[in-house]
Amino acid sequence: MKFIHTADWHIGRKLQQVDLLDDQEFVLNNLIEEIKEQDLDFIIIAGDLYDRSVPSREATTLLQELLIKINIECDLPIFAISGNHDSRERLAVGQAWFSKHNFYLATQLEDVFHKFQYKDADIYLLPYFEPYEAKVYFEDDKLTTHHTATKRVIDEIYKNIDESRINILVAHTFVAGADPTDSEREISIGTVENVGVNVFEKFDYVALGHLHNPNALNEERIKYSGSPLAYSFSESNQQKGVRLIELTKENFDDRFIPIKQKRKMHNIVADYDEIFSKEYREKFDTENDYFSMELGKLEGVTDPMPRIKEFYPNTLLLKSKAKRLDSSKNSVNKEMLKKNPLELIESFYEEQVLDTLTSTQREVLEQIIGEVEQDETN
Amino acid sequence: MKFIHTADWHIGRKLQQVDLLDDQEFVLNNLIEEIKEQDLDFIIIAGDLYDRSVPSREATTLLQELLIKINIECDLPIFAISGNHDSRERLAVGQAWFSKHNFYLATQLEDVFHKFQYKDADIYLLPYFEPYEAKVYFEDDKLTTHHTATKRVIDEIYKNIDESRINILVAHTFVAGADPTDSEREISIGTVENVGVNVFEKFDYVALGHLHNPNALNEERIKYSGSPLAYSFSESNQQKGVRLIELTKENFDDRFIPIKQKRKMHNIVADYDEIFSKEYREKFDTENDYFSMELGKLEGVTDPMPRIKEFYPNTLLLKSKAKRLDSSKNSVNKEMLKKNPLELIESFYEEQVLDTLTSTQREVLEQIIGEVEQDETN
Repeated sequence: MKFIHTADWHIGRKLQQVDLLDDQEFVLNNLIEEIKEQDLDFIIIAGDLYDRSVPSREATTLLQELLIKINIECDLPIFAISGNHDSRERLAVGQAWFSKHNFYLATQLEDVFHKFQYKDADIYLLPYFEPYEAKVYFEDDKLTTHHTATKRVIDEIYKNIDESRINILVAHTFVAGADPTDSEREISIGTVENVGVNVFEKFDYVALGHLHNPNALNEERIKYSGSPLAYSFSESNQQKGVRLIELTKENFDDRFIPIKQKRKMHNIVADYDEIFSKEYREKFDTENDYFSMELGKLEGVTDPMPRIKEFYPNTLLLKSKAKRLDSSKNSVNKEMLKKNPLELIESFYEEQVLDTLTSTQREVLEQIIGEVEQDETN
Repeated sequence: MKFIHTADWHIGRKLQQVDLLDDQEFVLNNLIEEIKEQDLDFIIIAGDLYDRSVPSREATTLLQELLIKINIECDLPIFAISGNHDSRERLAVGQAWFSKHNFYLATQLEDVFHKFQYKDADIYLLPYFEPYEAKVYFEDDKLTTHHTATKRVIDEIYKNIDESRINILVAHTFVAGADPTDSEREISIGTVENVGVNVFEKFDYVALGHLHNPNALNEERIKYSGSPLAYSFSESNQQKGVRLIELTKENFDDRFIPIKQKRKMHNIVADYDEIFSKEYREKFDTENDYFSMELGKLEGVTDPMPRIKEFYPNTLLLKSKAKRLDSSKNSVNKEMLKKNPLELIESFYEEQVLDTLTSTQREVLEQIIGEVEQDETN
């Protein structure tokens, strides 16, 4: 069994108002070239094919072209699911005809209970779903979290699983390690729900979508492929590509294949004057790449953007380095947890707009925060 | 060759803010029952499958269900085109897979130059297109009207037509008789473009969509099917259904098959008091049907709608009979042609709102009309 695992194409995504469709077309066509190089059994696309529930006409056309190339022109079976960014109903258009050509797309929770048999593998397709759907499906009010709901779904699959075959699950969800690291623990303080890794123990491979970092989870048989492109500057240092999986009941081989990008993304942290020197600029493809600039010594520079764009035309973000809260930390900033809502908004505003709040803005914010707090205590 | 010709489903249509999806589901499922009764070769759907370029999720799901029933469950070939209400790109999703299951959908002008051979028939699918598309395609600046553009397209088809076979054209356009009637002549005074009927002389049957009245064109071999439901109160007296065509090179038989509707539409013209009597109400399925009321003797009645809705809950329109311009005429009102734009808007407003324009409204309108007229003379 040899297949490619990809996810999170997010076709139609914009980055700071810039349309990434050209980048997506370039990268995903390179992905198709990779498909042609390999002698694959199938490809898995683990959700978020589109970025929005109502994709633009251009996004619709691009996804169609890519799927036609893969499924019809390369005659390669596709196993795909909808993600939280997809509209189930819109993504499902054509589904009944796709399945007649070995393109299997699951968009409903109950689709996962149909096992697709492909050679010596059984493939289960679990689209993104909310806990309430499992609650309704199983008539069980206790299924209120992603973990309990997913566990219940998987337990149902286990009732009929044939452990002598290669069992593959495709899912779009946030899976956390059984023993979370510090940063994952911090995240789980918030509202983000995750699914414990031990739920999946009977599968030979779990092909995940949702997180854009291919190394988001450190498990041998449970992997994110990550997105094929960087979709925010925080992803600029991540490897972008697909996973090539070779799998028998005895052996498992996982290889990450980087896919050539049209443009790179760079987070520049430097002083304002520094970035215009020839030596500095030569480190980048300045005409082509996307830049986020975090610059020091901006004081006294009244309108920096025009000059920056002259040298780095695709500069999409500009922040002042001096105003940054605490640039030495990557994880959730401890200082932030001590601030009250008004202070949080204030420092965010200062960081983004490079100016302080006016008294009118403060007043409006105080009023809104007051109303929200009032609501919460009621 | 035996087939059903339908068009203008307009799935997702609303009538005065009322969602017609239930009505559409009912009627189109009855159409499918009719399909099962007949031993058909195929079905033609001549455009405007959706009502809007971005159909709702519910509309998307309903159209999918209907097409699956027809093409997959009944295993009936479909020949369809996009209409002016459809988004080509969105309707085309899945097209590459549909065609592998005898569901042929044309959304681009150039698709018409591919001839579909089905038994002894050649079928040409001409989606709705704008004259400029033909202008670009043929590199001919003279193609500025629907008539000249369509004629050029058809002439191109005629270069390779095989007149020994049954030739069927499917199109979504406004075809006018060679000898227009009075009412058609009046329409052509406006900006609506039409295509002359003699353009189509080499076809054995032309299956048209666009006009909702099945009898809009009085030609033996060039027919509108009309919409399967009434979509405005002006259509309430039209027969609604599909055409059943039986066709050989020698014989032609056309039968209009009415399709059972969920609700009827009624244009009521009466005095206010009259409609509440038992005898009057017994003429209708008052709980169920849609009503447009044009009532006399409304003077002095301050808030008529609640009482009307008590007896006729699906009353969607209410006008005062007294305020009507000239209720005795059905065709374009001669009086209207003499009015200037402000007067036209004024009388429309009075008819709809049952009140006169305020001086501020008049001023704004005068300004806008002035600007538009200025633009036109530039």
